[in-house]
Amino acid sequence: MDPQSAAARHVAIIAGHLNCPSPSAVAPLALAACLHYDPPELSEKPPAFDLATLRRVLDGHDLAARDWLFRLMEESPLFCPRGRGDRTFVVPDYNQTKEQQRAVTMRRIEYLLHRRVFEGWVTGSGPEAELRKLAFFECIAIYDHSLSIKLGVKGCFAMTELGHGSNVRGIETIATYDTNTREFVINTPCESAQKYWIGGVANDATHTIIFSQLLINGISQGIHAFVAQIRDVDGNVRPNVRIADCGHKTGLNGVDNGRIWFDNLRVPREDLLNSVADVLPDGQYVSSIKDKDRRFAAFMAPLTFGRVNIAATAVYISKVALAIAVRYGLTRRAFSISANGPEVPLLDYPSHQWRLLPLIAKICAMSSAANYLKRLYVKRTPETNKSIHIYSSSLKATLTWHNMRTLQECRKTCGGQGLKTENRIGILIGEYDVQSTFEGDNNVLMQQVSKALLAEYLAAEKMKSPFEGLGLEHMNDPCPIIPADLTSCTLRSIKFQLDLLCLRERDLLGRYASEVSQYQAHGESKQMAVLLSHQLADELARAFTERTILQIFADDEMIQSAGPLKELLGLLRSMYALICVEEDASFLRYGYLSLESAAAARKEVMKLCGELRPDALSVVSSFGIPDAFLSPIAFDWIQANSWASLSNE
Amino acid sequence: MDPQSAAARHVAIIAGHLNCPSPSAVAPLALAACLHYDPPELSEKPPAFDLATLRRVLDGHDLAARDWLFRLMEESPLFCPRGRGDRTFVVPDYNQTKEQQRAVTMRRIEYLLHRRVFEGWVTGSGPEAELRKLAFFECIAIYDHSLSIKLGVKGCFAMTELGHGSNVRGIETIATYDTNTREFVINTPCESAQKYWIGGVANDATHTIIFSQLLINGISQGIHAFVAQIRDVDGNVRPNVRIADCGHKTGLNGVDNGRIWFDNLRVPREDLLNSVADVLPDGQYVSSIKDKDRRFAAFMAPLTFGRVNIAATAVYISKVALAIAVRYGLTRRAFSISANGPEVPLLDYPSHQWRLLPLIAKICAMSSAANYLKRLYVKRTPETNKSIHIYSSSLKATLTWHNMRTLQECRKTCGGQGLKTENRIGILIGEYDVQSTFEGDNNVLMQQVSKALLAEYLAAEKMKSPFEGLGLEHMNDPCPIIPADLTSCTLRSIKFQLDLLCLRERDLLGRYASEVSQYQAHGESKQMAVLLSHQLADELARAFTERTILQIFADDEMIQSAGPLKELLGLLRSMYALICVEEDASFLRYGYLSLESAAAARKEVMKLCGELRPDALSVVSSFGIPDAFLSPIAFDWIQANSWASLSNE
Repeated sequence: MDPQSAAARHVAIIAGHLNCPSPSAVAPLALAACLHYDPPELSEKPPAFDLATLRRVLDGHDLAARDWLFRLMEESPLFCPRGRGDRTFVVPDYNQTKEQQRAVTMRRIEYLLHRRVFEGWVTGSGPEAELRKLAFFECIAIYDHSLSIKLGVKGCFAMTELGHGSNVRGIETIATYDTNTREFVINTPCESAQKYWIGGVANDATHTIIFSQLLINGISQGIHAFVAQIRDVDGNVRPNVRIADCGHKTGLNGVDNGRIWFDNLRVPREDLLNSVADVLPDGQYVSSIKDKDRRFAAFMAPLTFGRVNIAATAVYISKVALAIAVRYGLTRRAFSISANGPEVPLLDYPSHQWRLLPLIAKICAMSSAANYLKRLYVKRTPETNKSIHIYSSSLKATLTWHNMRTLQECRKTCGGQGLKTENRIGILIGEYDVQSTFEGDNNVLMQQVSKALLAEYLAAEKMKSPFEGLGLEHMNDPCPIIPADLTSCTLRSIKFQLDLLCLRERDLLGRYASEVSQYQAHGESKQMAVLLSHQLADELARAFTERTILQIFADDEMIQSAGPLKELLGLLRSMYALICVEEDASFLRYGYLSLESAAAARKEVMKLCGELRPDALSVVSSFGIPDAFLSPIAFDWIQANSWASLSNE
Repeated sequence: MDPQSAAARHVAIIAGHLNCPSPSAVAPLALAACLHYDPPELSEKPPAFDLATLRRVLDGHDLAARDWLFRLMEESPLFCPRGRGDRTFVVPDYNQTKEQQRAVTMRRIEYLLHRRVFEGWVTGSGPEAELRKLAFFECIAIYDHSLSIKLGVKGCFAMTELGHGSNVRGIETIATYDTNTREFVINTPCESAQKYWIGGVANDATHTIIFSQLLINGISQGIHAFVAQIRDVDGNVRPNVRIADCGHKTGLNGVDNGRIWFDNLRVPREDLLNSVADVLPDGQYVSSIKDKDRRFAAFMAPLTFGRVNIAATAVYISKVALAIAVRYGLTRRAFSISANGPEVPLLDYPSHQWRLLPLIAKICAMSSAANYLKRLYVKRTPETNKSIHIYSSSLKATLTWHNMRTLQECRKTCGGQGLKTENRIGILIGEYDVQSTFEGDNNVLMQQVSKALLAEYLAAEKMKSPFEGLGLEHMNDPCPIIPADLTSCTLRSIKFQLDLLCLRERDLLGRYASEVSQYQAHGESKQMAVLLSHQLADELARAFTERTILQIFADDEMIQSAGPLKELLGLLRSMYALICVEEDASFLRYGYLSLESAAAARKEVMKLCGELRPDALSVVSSFGIPDAFLSPIAFDWIQANSWASLSNE
């Protein structure tokens, strides 16, 4: 902290007292009342573990590259550095119109391009290059969601239509093959078929990938994709193409989402994306994959990148909010516990700890899960396609839901300050809300996860074969026994925690299968039976995801050598497991735990809150978010709001 | 619907097909695929009850006045009427900068003033005038939160400071009395004492009510309020006053929240608000209320208006979102249940019904509760102060929480369309998030409710006197017995529902009291014991509020004469009661219900979803929100998004 300004501040305070007519009388009360800011680093105990090591565990990869990119953003005036007290923060100017936000987003991309941030993004292949690319998306996203989305939609996908989103197979755009000219003719047959939400289309995109029904000699071959130019080099919309703006949005106004209509747009035969199927010059349709469903799945597989990226980004955004909320909670005081006692820092209230500390444990566990998913994705093979699809679906939904919950809770724990744009948390809510419905609606994704698990269950039953993959091997073992009386030691053991979460998953999978078959027995179709069992499907998908996350997080803990960090990871893992128990009524509803055991688990969460409280600052510091990407309330918010600081805004 | 444009649309669709090279082949698929919009009024069954009567029940008062005010807003170009298809919607332009939003907000107020909307707001007293004023706040709020807040802060309260919000008694501003000049001298002794979030101060306010510690001869008399002029008639900030802007916010950018510093600002003795205490010319401090705590309570009582207004407004906002989401859910289709079958409207999916229909039942019940609170408030007497404080606290917190949850769920059920500003729901999230922390943080309020209930409990125990007031009389009766096996008939009976919710409240109050006393027995201070029992406090406050709402809603049902409307209210009341059971794990955690009974309750909720589904459109139509205040996706969203409609935007 700059001593000069500190001194200046104290002078101002004293001057304030001298202003009062009867200082003798006023001063004592005023002095007692006047708040003083101490950096939490001074009031909190020093870290019991190495912050850098924990960051390596949580970030997983490319730490140096992340820091390099953070610096690049901090260095450029394009990222709106704003002085607050004796600090500088980079934060987009959300008081700009969408037109201004779009323009500055493009300039920021040009700057990053010029600084060679995207080197190898297209050419560079291999796991390492892809991991680095994912890390960069995370870093850019904590500055501004529009910036990362705008990057992601270069060469945008024109898939969604006004009338069809999640149900991609229902899209109405039609491509027919003209054997005479050897071209595909693409049409928007009706208004509901207009392409919608296409990122980058309203203003900038020159090319797009059009998803369309393919008709060969009047026979539909299902959804296919075509590369098409929609603007010429001068940016003029091409003939046979009409484009409109999607207008102002709750967030992401730096992205020019647009709508497209095609009127007999002709595309050369070679511009069909023929990875899974092709059309020969004479119009003959050929595909290596005969089954239409499998062909569609293979065709959609590349889109998984979006879900992996979203899941990883959601975790990083939560870290920004938690770092801000914890630091503010350690320096903002309210009420006193004893008569005439000093006011108490918010984070010393048991209720405040209960609101934030479980979220911190969850985000640490989810960091491990996101890293696992990223590694699985960058090393993908045809064999891993299925598990990548299921893990990316369940984690995209779960991590984005958790991110919204975390942002909302953090914003509220900061009170009105959480809604000041410069403090970031409130704005992040509006910017990231979209994650729960784009690239696959979360509810639809979770239902698909349960359907996939049901298929595994029925296959294993039918084939009398053991479960294999997706971590379902525990289904082959005898049902785990949960001890009757739960000591603190038992509650914190990995075995108990995994047993309990496996028990829930196993039982819910069985219940789901039997409820579906019961509905079918009563004459319902398979689809309807599944729809009617939506509650068990949701409970099962949640059970699968939480068991998966716990297992991955426990693995990251296991490989640590004994010491303070491993102990901390153990506390976080126990908090994660037990808060999952506390928050899911199914443990009581289906009797996985007795009332006494559930009460013991709740008590243990409260004890864990007390034990994790001293490490709160160290953990959020290890998230590796640079100070400039946090906000004024994360530091000396009295100085940042002082009259003097107005001058350097 | 304008037949002309409909015809034009069909021509366009047919033309679309003719464009396709081989119509014979394409047409069948294309025709099958092309979506067609039918107004839900055509596809749904006609209302089984009188919509106007239900609206009278839900709105409670001033229906004609509300409609008059809605018309006034629809008529003025200041409210940005925008054409979509053949409809017009009024919605603020949130693509404007905060400066522009502030300016247009003032112009809208001037327009409403000119149209005599505020007649009698200051002069007119009496319950009817106050109810009408509350109704107007609700109506204005569904257009724009900034507009209603800016109205509410005329003659703004300078209470909150940078360093103190919820803990009002801790504010640091100091007023000392100067006997020589018979003036109060008001000072901001340090930066943390700067007034913060003061609505209307940054640009416009000429006067404000300053909350400050009052020092008489060096003795603090606690918080008092002073009327002070901060700008002259020309709008220049007065000497001894400094003002700064709070800057851009997540929402409410039409309100100029500001910060104030006072440097020896002198205020005439007469400008002390002396309702509860006064200072005589010679500096002698006199008050009719000797006890400082009771004086502070009496002094804060008038602020209750804000909470009553917020609770009522939150309900109205939820209705806007539910009306939009239900109408969209009835006309937006996705996937088909049978092979090659038609796509199914979203609201016909059991999971979609489960997401929206309980929210509708809750908002109907909460409408009754809000009306009860408003009537209690406008007829307030010194005797009712306590219950008004407790009801306004619990309902402000519960109804605003429910509003945010409703907005978030509705926005997600609308997918990406929920984030388009013109569709309103997404924007309302950002605009109304603030309700959960201003005018009393929701969590703090709910803890206060439980503390008040605890006081009642301890008093009744000590005095051996029966419970009286706050609906706690049921505590005097023997503990209700919950039948072992629950038939559908039992589950839907008012007696069972009230018994169950009373049982929960009664038991939680007892548990809370004993946990607090146990902590005290272990040497904790009373305050600390209460803080450590925060979980039971939250569960108790929730139990109290939900039992209160159910009772009030049941009373509104009871006075209806037998018929379809009363039957509907019965379904809604059962849905409300049973979803409360489904969503609160405490029924299982503390054994108020057996696992079988809880399962039966859940099954009943599912049945109720099916039974309420046919009335969904009728119920949201009875909310009385004019079409122009809904959004394009609530009507023909295909036409509204058509290329042709771009011209009349």
